[in-house]
Amino acid sequence: MKANRIHNFNPGPAALPLPVLEQIQESFLNYKSCGMSILEISHRSKEFEVILADAVTRTKRLLKLDDRFHVIFLQGGATLQFAMIPMNFLADGRSADYVNTGTWSTNAIKEARVLNKPIQVVASSEDRQFTYIPQNIDFSSDAVYVHITSNNTIRGTQWSHFPDTRGVPIVADMSSDFMSRPFDAQPFGLIYAGAQKNIGPAGVTMVIVRDDMLKLVPDPLPVMLKYTTFTSKNSLYNTPPCFAIYAVHLVLKWVEETVGGLENMASVNRTKAERLYRCIDESGGFYRGTAEPASRSRMNVTFRLASEDLEKRFLDEATKNGLGGLKGHRSVGGCRASLYNAVASEAVDALVDFMKTFAKENG
Amino acid sequence: MKANRIHNFNPGPAALPLPVLEQIQESFLNYKSCGMSILEISHRSKEFEVILADAVTRTKRLLKLDDRFHVIFLQGGATLQFAMIPMNFLADGRSADYVNTGTWSTNAIKEARVLNKPIQVVASSEDRQFTYIPQNIDFSSDAVYVHITSNNTIRGTQWSHFPDTRGVPIVADMSSDFMSRPFDAQPFGLIYAGAQKNIGPAGVTMVIVRDDMLKLVPDPLPVMLKYTTFTSKNSLYNTPPCFAIYAVHLVLKWVEETVGGLENMASVNRTKAERLYRCIDESGGFYRGTAEPASRSRMNVTFRLASEDLEKRFLDEATKNGLGGLKGHRSVGGCRASLYNAVASEAVDALVDFMKTFAKENG
Repeated sequence: MKANRIHNFNPGPAALPLPVLEQIQESFLNYKSCGMSILEISHRSKEFEVILADAVTRTKRLLKLDDRFHVIFLQGGATLQFAMIPMNFLADGRSADYVNTGTWSTNAIKEARVLNKPIQVVASSEDRQFTYIPQNIDFSSDAVYVHITSNNTIRGTQWSHFPDTRGVPIVADMSSDFMSRPFDAQPFGLIYAGAQKNIGPAGVTMVIVRDDMLKLVPDPLPVMLKYTTFTSKNSLYNTPPCFAIYAVHLVLKWVEETVGGLENMASVNRTKAERLYRCIDESGGFYRGTAEPASRSRMNVTFRLASEDLEKRFLDEATKNGLGGLKGHRSVGGCRASLYNAVASEAVDALVDFMKTFAKENG
Repeated sequence: MKANRIHNFNPGPAALPLPVLEQIQESFLNYKSCGMSILEISHRSKEFEVILADAVTRTKRLLKLDDRFHVIFLQGGATLQFAMIPMNFLADGRSADYVNTGTWSTNAIKEARVLNKPIQVVASSEDRQFTYIPQNIDFSSDAVYVHITSNNTIRGTQWSHFPDTRGVPIVADMSSDFMSRPFDAQPFGLIYAGAQKNIGPAGVTMVIVRDDMLKLVPDPLPVMLKYTTFTSKNSLYNTPPCFAIYAVHLVLKWVEETVGGLENMASVNRTKAERLYRCIDESGGFYRGTAEPASRSRMNVTFRLASEDLEKRFLDEATKNGLGGLKGHRSVGGCRASLYNAVASEAVDALVDFMKTFAKENG
């Protein structure tokens, strides 16, 4: 661990690749010899133009997006998207389908309802405390879009394959597994992701929106709440969160050039998750995974120990051993290891070693 | 100039205090020995709690705010505030007064109208190209608020004293002169400021809102567009732009502890602006200030030379001499020196020296 850095399993904001952090640090007072910090340059400068263009180009290349897709940068997190999506796409009174797989889906549904939009919840895993991803869903054929949450951080579930919506555009909150694996973007009308899990620091939301969806955007909306403001002005209608975009561009460069692309990234992530789930499953019940096996997330591994007291001891000991961020979400308790892109295999090895030792000593 | 840094007169994002940048850089890989970068810590960690509380406390102390005022952090820049203000405060059909002093006021008015709010423009300086601040305005006694832009970056004008609105709360966009001088906050119902001029990097907007205004906020609004979401959750309803808030907290600490508070800050800013305006006024017409003298801004000093060719040469030569960001806003052309808090007196001295030499050589 360089410079006494810990192994960081935070659920977001989360670990970032060390080479990215080192690069930010090194050039912090004088970015590319322009005489200013990256924090001090204009969003309309040549330097920032290059950063923004690079972030867009790498996103398109990594996800194999064709020209129908626009890559834009917004603020306000996924939560603002929960409102913007129905504001932009359901202006004419038509309906959309929502799949409820946990807290974030529930919040997305809530926001559409606050706006009085006639949406339908076509499937939910609430009956078993959101511990699984619903299958064989009967989608409405006349829905404007189908909304899903690709990965659920709190209960630790993830769509392993995206559903067949028979041509209805999928709108997906990918905040917590974006850029962790390749996928076919063709069925998606809009993808959004708060950066602070897999692709950067908090403070910027990447949105990928398909051309045909933009035709649905109504005229009389506040300018910052219209996707067309961002697509027509290349995310520069007003001052964007420059530093966060800069960091995202460096992380995407790392995914592409150091990791070698999304196939490699997915393979590393799969191996990390499998190792940890194996440790849980082979612990003879000392650790219990909370998600149903077929729906397990490769990003957020959630588990319980026999009692809350034991969990507390586990978390305390983990902290002492340089393993941070393992506490479960405050709404459900328990333990959670978030294994986002920047969490190194070595961190998972250290966690597994610790878990085995802890189980032996407390079993 | 340390490490070949230039004198930065950018209009925003803009110069930041060098000691702040150095502190960010120094602890970047391991914040306060917590083993993580400031970019990697949780927004619900003890470390971030301290940062957020410190930013709020310093703001309250610097501006002498009593307990009726809430200090919150939002995203989306001033432009999102243009919409949020009428959404939050004009739900019941009542009207508000707007004073139009330039592009940003015009945009604020536009957003209120997009939302179909019955606002009134009670004064405007558009008749003389926004080169002055209107005086003796007849405000409506039944307005919910009076909206003003305290400093106008494009035409270089500033309210030297705030208007007497006879008890109607003032709502002010202070993006470009916030924390540059002390003022009596009592008449203000809401103050907002994008950080990227005087108090930090791009990516966060500070809002100060008075208790009585919160009673106007209607229930059925998207959660991220309601001020009460931020006041009730201490800006932590969802993940805030942590790094930008961290930088703001360091800048406020610098204003308080290094500069010695807002009286001192104002005195430094006054001296800087006076020196530059004197250089313009004593140039025998070589440089011409564009704002009417009584309305001149201490933040953005706008001026023209005899021709666009000469202006181009001026800007090129300035760049060669390590003086950056002097180009006027693209909508009006000419030259502009932004003298925000972090622009050192030495930078202004260097600019004045350069301007005198350039005038001599090209006069």
